[in-house]
Parts: sequence; structure tokens; C-alpha cells
Amino acid sequence: MPHYPDPVDGFVIEAAGLREWTDALIRRVGTPEDIAADVAEVLLASDLRGIASHGTARLPQYLRLVESGSLDPAARPGKEMGKPGLARFDAKNGWGHHAGRVATDDAIERAKETGTAISVLHHANHFGIAGWYAMRVAQRGLIGLSLTNSAPMVAPTRARIRMLGTNPIAFAAPAGRHGTLVLDMATSTVARGRIEVAARRGEALPEGWAIGPDGSPATTPQIALQGALQPLGGAEETGGYKGYGLALLVDVLTGILGGAAFGLDIVGLFSKEGRPDLGQFFMAIDPGAIGELSAFETRLERLLDQLTGAPLVPGAPGPVLFPGQPEAERAQRQARDGIAIDAEHHAALVELARRYRVAFPSARAIR
Amino acid sequence: MPHYPDPVDGFVIEAAGLREWTDALIRRVGTPEDIAADVAEVLLASDLRGIASHGTARLPQYLRLVESGSLDPAARPGKEMGKPGLARFDAKNGWGHHAGRVATDDAIERAKETGTAISVLHHANHFGIAGWYAMRVAQRGLIGLSLTNSAPMVAPTRARIRMLGTNPIAFAAPAGRHGTLVLDMATSTVARGRIEVAARRGEALPEGWAIGPDGSPATTPQIALQGALQPLGGAEETGGYKGYGLALLVDVLTGILGGAAFGLDIVGLFSKEGRPDLGQFFMAIDPGAIGELSAFETRLERLLDQLTGAPLVPGAPGPVLFPGQPEAERAQRQARDGIAIDAEHHAALVELARRYRVAFPSARAIR
Repeated sequence: MPHYPDPVDGFVIEAAGLREWTDALIRRVGTPEDIAADVAEVLLASDLRGIASHGTARLPQYLRLVESGSLDPAARPGKEMGKPGLARFDAKNGWGHHAGRVATDDAIERAKETGTAISVLHHANHFGIAGWYAMRVAQRGLIGLSLTNSAPMVAPTRARIRMLGTNPIAFAAPAGRHGTLVLDMATSTVARGRIEVAARRGEALPEGWAIGPDGSPATTPQIALQGALQPLGGAEETGGYKGYGLALLVDVLTGILGGAAFGLDIVGLFSKEGRPDLGQFFMAIDPGAIGELSAFETRLERLLDQLTGAPLVPGAPGPVLFPGQPEAERAQRQARDGIAIDAEHHAALVELARRYRVAFPSARAIR
Repeated sequence: MPHYPDPVDGFVIEAAGLREWTDALIRRVGTPEDIAADVAEVLLASDLRGIASHGTARLPQYLRLVESGSLDPAARPGKEMGKPGLARFDAKNGWGHHAGRVATDDAIERAKETGTAISVLHHANHFGIAGWYAMRVAQRGLIGLSLTNSAPMVAPTRARIRMLGTNPIAFAAPAGRHGTLVLDMATSTVARGRIEVAARRGEALPEGWAIGPDGSPATTPQIALQGALQPLGGAEETGGYKGYGLALLVDVLTGILGGAAFGLDIVGLFSKEGRPDLGQFFMAIDPGAIGELSAFETRLERLLDQLTGAPLVPGAPGPVLFPGQPEAERAQRQARDGIAIDAEHHAALVELARRYRVAFPSARAIR
């Protein structure tokens, strides 16, 4: 399972305080109240779940985009056209978290009528963790799927260069007493952030993570960071063409279907080369259209019971987990005890607080 | 890309002759004409595309199921309930290829009205290649997705035993002058058949394909065949939990959503332990609901142009391919020159021809 260790050198901040501060900061740069609440909600959910790369640590980058005029903090997505089962929205280059929430809620409402509904977005921005949108659907008793394309980072099987994004797939379903099943995965073997961590720690890389600029497998993080990520499955022999196929599936359902940018044409998310024009896809399926939701959840409980009770391989680091289980446990713990962030992340937020004059909440040093 | 070599020792049969024979054989065991045509169509599509494991080579097993009464050759799927976007069918344990075709066509018709539509099946049987159903949707100008669960073969990350099927994901989209994009992938690193091939050839196994009965990585095909397949991604370190998550996603959308069997409860497909009660999922998305289909296809052509024209890694065995490209090229060639099958496959069909007294078409020996 993905490993998100607690920082050893950092600070713990009470979740409500960090949320209020995030909300106030976002409003300070011209974001209307309801939009700011959505952004703060998604960023905090990421921090609570221990996915530091997609939460408040991104605020300095987001605010630079607002300041440079390439993200419009007051933009509201507009529904353009469609049918009950498939509608398109123009995100108008506003906050991705708000546009994603609006598109998701619209899909939920339509799915309750018709059984299944999709919203696709164009002119969209980075929306944080893909899993949040799928989870929102599951929390309303439906099955959720959310997808986004992203700037080229992954080399397709046999290709030497970055051509597709890490194009995540997020899927969530209500799972009764197990809470929510949430799969939220990049279609590359690992995210770029995992290689940056290996670089800081001086680790060698396993095969299957990345290739260097000459196209051969990268054995050090330094070579990998100049090259490209490999798709899930790694080399051709170990099924890497399947990860490549999944990344392509995501681009077809987002950029191609939504009429947004795709493939090599997507500019870096936090670059100023231009507006990203990401494509995003949100789907809701209502199990209630063909049976009782409670029967669905009872069956899923039984499947998760089977999986989490399985006999283990020798040396397993713990029991079999279901997707989203460790993140949910961490979110529960951090909602109670505070959110742990590393020192660099903390310093960046304190600097934002100073610059925008929004007092930063008190934080307790770890150790 | 998956490698399906032509047999070196076998026979070549003209496609139309093999189709007519298959059709006649299936009718001989009590299958109505229209149902037999569907079964022959899907089996021949598999043989034409070079996926020998899912085509006419399965006929001996299918006919044993009919003879033992565990597959009803005359059963017709019944629509049970649903809404325009999501409907459920009882496949009544008939031919999987027919039930899948009916459910797919129903989803296509509803998607043309509403934008997106899903059919789920329970009491379903083995339906051949998942890709055929997604392709059928794409050939009508919509985006197709088809999923099926299957008997336990894959060990989830950290588990020592087989708990989930190879649960394939098939996705297809109309791609203009590139024909059809078709991703058809098991969510395990490789299919069991690939390990059987390695056993016949005396090959060692790469890491990430399978574990032995004790849970450690299987280094020989013999150990692997007693153990379990690994999910796409292989070990936990190389992202195997993502392949496990995808296999679980498929079981949720098929067995759990459809009210069919799931997880450990699925009996072997060709065993006589009981009826399989598979769950299946077919979705159609109509790009025409939010724009011109031709604009969708033009964008997808451009993306596939980028990919297939990419600079290559050193020693690449050929250009970057898009999913479904090598299979489509092979189907075109074999439709013209005949279908190559290996000697064992040929002998099994000749034996069926003798037993059911349906004259087998002439075949030309390879070499």
C-alpha cells in the first residue's frame, strides 16, 4: 500500500484552525465565500488523509497562479450542453476544486433521476486529490468515478519521452460498516513526488519506476527526474503497456471527450506558459436504480471481509487492506489529534500568512 | 505489447468456413439460430485477432457445459428493472456471448437517448473476449466499456491465496482513420495462459507475474501454477496494490452492483461445481450528446498520431503502438489469408466435428 510516513521534523496544527486559515487566505485573493469553502474543504481532506503533496502545501503555487492572472478566483463553471446522462461544463479557468464539486453534484442529481450520469469539464485547473470527488458521490450512496488528465510526465511503452500525464483514476463506493472504498491511483507506477523523496533520502530506484533521458531504466532518482515516469506495470514484459493503456483511457474520457487539451499539448500545471485547459470527468452510478442500496452495501461488506481477513504472505508488513482504508484511519486520527506537516511545508504557509496578512494558527513542534 | 506469436506447427483455416462450422456446431446442441450467430461472431473475432485462448479453442469446454446441463443453450436474457441510465438483465445462465451482445445493444440504444447508459448482468457465463463488447459500441460511434468478474486467480497485495479474478477491463473508442482504439486487459500482470506457455517452453518467470503456494515470488511456471497470479504492478513496491484495486473496482461494478457472485464465491468457469453466476457490466457513452462525433475523432486521431510517432527507447522491438492496433492488423491479415491455429487446437476441433457430425472445413498445414 502507498506509504505516507508522518514527518519526523515538523508541526502539528489543529484541523479546524488550518481550514479557517486556508479559507480566509483564499478569500483574501478575491475568491467568493462559497468557492473558497470548496477549495479549503478539498485541500484539508488531502492533508487529513496524509496526502501532503495535494493539500495546503500547494497554496504557494495556487496563489502565484491567481496573482499572475492565469487562474480566475471568482470564475464559476457554466453548464454548456448535454443530455441527462452526459453534460459538459466550462470551468472558465477558475478554482479546480470548486468546478469539480459543482460538476460532481450535478452528476449526482442527474444520476438519481436517470441511474447514471457524467459531467465532463474543459478549461479546468488542478483540482487536488481525484479521490475527493468520487468520495463525495459515495457519501451520498452512489458509486463515484473521477478522472483528470495532466501535463506530460509518463513515457508510453517503447517511447523515450514524456507524452501522457500521470492521469489518475479515482473510484469510490459506499461500503456499509467498512465506511467507503476509495481507490485513488495515478496510472504511473509511482508519482513524481515519490522519486523526489527518494532523491532527498539518497535511495536507489527499483526497476519499473522511471526511465532516464536516453530511454534506459533509471537507477537513480537524479536520472529519473530528468527522464520520464513509467506507466503502471513498468517494462513491457511486466505489463507496462496496460498502465499506458489506462493513462490513455483517462485522456480519452477527459481531454478528448471534454474538448480540452490532451497529450503533449497540456502545459505544466503550475507553469506560466499558458492556461492548462485540463479535461476532467465525474460519474455517478445509482445502485438504487436496480435494487436496494442496503443490499449493495451488504455484498460489499462481505467482499471486504473476505479480503481483509485473508492469510498473508511471509513478512507482510500488515494485514490486507482495502483501497482507502489507511487514508481513512489517518484522517480520523488527524481530525482528532491535529494534522502533522513537515517543516518546509509549515514555513511556506507561515510565509503566505505574513505576506497576505492572515494570522497563521498556532502549531505545536513535533519532538 | 502483448505477444501472440503465430503457431509454428498448426493449420490455416479460411475464416468464413470456420465461422460457418462453429455456427452449425453450436446450433447442433440446441442453440437457436440468432444466439448461435452471436456466439460464432465473438469466438471468430477472438481467433481473427490472435487471442487463441478465448476463441474456438474454448468450444470443447463450452459443449461440456451444455451437455452437463450447466449452460442452457436456448436461454434468452431478460430485462429485470432499471432506469434509462442503468438496467439489469438476468442472463439465465445461457450463452454469455449472446447475453453480452443483447445487453450491449440495449445500452447503446439507451445511451443515444440519454447520453450514457449501463447494462449489468447476473447469472452470466463466460463471454469470450471483453473487448468485443466495447468494440461493438465504438463501431456505432460511441465510447464503450465492458467488464466481467471471474473465478479467483489473483492474490491481492499481501494475501497468500487466490481471491479475485483476472477481472478484465475493456475500453474502446472510435478513432477516425486509426480505426478503433481497443484496450482489453486483465488486471493481473499476465493471464494464466501466459504462464502455461512459459511452462511448455521451460522459461523462468520475471518477478511480478505470480507467487507460489507459500506466498513468495514464483520463479518457475510450475510453482506459479500451484500459487496465484499477481495483480498488475506486481509487488507492493512496484504498485501491485493498484492492480489489486482495479480488480476490486471490476468486482464492485459487476458482481456487487449486478447482484451476482463475487470474490471467493465464484466457482471455476469451466468446472462443474455449480453455475458460475458471473457479473458483467457494459457501458456506452455518446460523445454526440456534447458535440460532433467527427470533432471527437479528429482529436483522438491527433493524440494517436503523437503517440505512434514518438521517439523510441534504445532496442525497442518496434514503434509505439496504441491499444488494439496489433490485434486489428492481425485480424485484417487473417480475414484475408486465413486463421492460423496450433495443432492441438485443430485436433480438438476435428474431434468435435467427428463427435457432433458437423463436417470440419478443409485446413492447410503450416509448413
